[in-house]
Amino acid sequence: MEKKEQLYEGKAKKVFATDDANLVIVDYKDDATAFNGEKKGTITGKGVINNVMSNHMFQLLEQQGVPTHFVEQLSERETLVKKVSIVPLEVIIRNISAGSFAKRFGVEEGIVFDEPTIEFSYKNDELGDPLMNAYHAIALKAATREEIETIKAMAFKVNEVMKQYFDTLNVILVDFKLEFGKTADGKIVLADEISPDTCRLWDKTTKEKLDKDRFRRDMGGVEEAYQEIMKRVMGK
Amino acid sequence: MEKKEQLYEGKAKKVFATDDANLVIVDYKDDATAFNGEKKGTITGKGVINNVMSNHMFQLLEQQGVPTHFVEQLSERETLVKKVSIVPLEVIIRNISAGSFAKRFGVEEGIVFDEPTIEFSYKNDELGDPLMNAYHAIALKAATREEIETIKAMAFKVNEVMKQYFDTLNVILVDFKLEFGKTADGKIVLADEISPDTCRLWDKTTKEKLDKDRFRRDMGGVEEAYQEIMKRVMGK
Ligand SMILES: Nc1ncnc2c1ncn2[C@@H]1O[C@H](COP(=O)(O)OP(=O)(O)O)[C@@H](O)[C@H]1O
Ligand SMILES: Nc1ncnc2c1ncn2[C@@H]1O[C@H](COP(=O)(O)OP(=O)(O)O)[C@@H](O)[C@H]1O
Ligand SMILES: [Mg+2]
Ligand SMILES: [Mg+2]
Repeated sequence: MEKKEQLYEGKAKKVFATDDANLVIVDYKDDATAFNGEKKGTITGKGVINNVMSNHMFQLLEQQGVPTHFVEQLSERETLVKKVSIVPLEVIIRNISAGSFAKRFGVEEGIVFDEPTIEFSYKNDELGDPLMNAYHAIALKAATREEIETIKAMAFKVNEVMKQYFDTLNVILVDFKLEFGKTADGKIVLADEISPDTCRLWDKTTKEKLDKDRFRRDMGGVEEAYQEIMKRVMGK
Repeated sequence: MEKKEQLYEGKAKKVFATDDANLVIVDYKDDATAFNGEKKGTITGKGVINNVMSNHMFQLLEQQGVPTHFVEQLSERETLVKKVSIVPLEVIIRNISAGSFAKRFGVEEGIVFDEPTIEFSYKNDELGDPLMNAYHAIALKAATREEIETIKAMAFKVNEVMKQYFDTLNVILVDFKLEFGKTADGKIVLADEISPDTCRLWDKTTKEKLDKDRFRRDMGGVEEAYQEIMKRVMGK
């Protein structure tokens, strides 16, 4: 598989063309941003961890019947994935109140919900990724009603698989963000990444944060948190 | 029916107890506010118009099978209504893009949606009435899943009735905000008001705004717009 021209550079990854029009290579960076790009930094080793962890999660999810963009890991930071057109929605599942939810609705972090919540934000950096409901998404033609239903079912399934999996690692899955894309043949698959950048992960015993909130909130121990998650996920 | 102590003074109405514990009197003021109370003013005659128009709309909706809080108009500004505990959600239906929708999602006003959208905002002035989806409302126990379903069905029904009705007055119903409440016996009814304060109404021919946006945007002709709607609704 030949790595060809760069198609896109995002905040955390670069995307490269290959000699197959249906495949691209994602290349994970150590760059970290928060608050819609306002805060910038580097988390040494993050690119490697997020690449390896994402691929581990995608393979686990595939085994559980969730179609993903994953094809093959090429190197520490590079992975071959199906090229998709990304549905312009960030799909957020929450099991416990935290972050923007707690702030928006004026509640403390740590409220365990009876049922997980799902929400969409419109993937648009200029607008600050505003919260959007399914009716809005359909009205603005960000997705069809059928696509929304597929995405919702897949996202809840991902939550069930991941919640159980992290529990075996003594980690609480608080919330996470997913992105979905459409392949050339119109099928919806899980895309992007699943990592401490995109999940809130708390140690089950100590409730210590093991995710990007340590960077967002200048808590220190950022690299160590990513390494700790990597160690638990990869068993080494 | 005796008017007893004031229970609450809101931005647009006062609520008084009566000698019947299940009934209250709403008293409509000329006070106008916008942008979560940041902008304040007076719209002379608004209280009378909003009272009379709301009652007209509630009676029309009752005839079409939508239960409302309306009991009896007592005076120009006062109406006897069933006392409800307000569900803390502002329920917004949109037929056409405008206002906060256009701003939030970076689109122009006037896009006609294929299907109406419904959204909830959490009725909390301190938090700025943040947008909230049904999952959030259930997680925060603002309403149950069944109440949300009832409210959604009622709100879409209200939209169908009102859209048709305003069309006969050569008025386009762009969007509107509803509030619902629970009566003593737990039944969900439409409450609060339906007026140019709570609806966006455009003249069908000229697209002229005949609602509170004239006040919000300092367009002038505010009183005249309210009077024009009153004239069309009451046929005089
Ligand atoms: N399988 C895929 N095919 C095409 N684009 C993808 C795929 N998976 C993820 N992407 C996109 O790659 C881009 C780079 O990722 P990232 O650096 O996280 O970007 P962003 O700054 O938008 O968060 C994102 O726009 C993401 O949606
Ligand atoms: N039938 C009812 N029973 C009790 N309260 C009601 C009823 N209808 C409306 N209300 C409430 O009356 C209050 C006064 O109205 P308003 O001045 O519009 O208040 P606000 O400043 O909250 O918008 C509001 O809190 C509204 O929810
Ligand atoms: Mg990203
Ligand atoms: Mg009000």
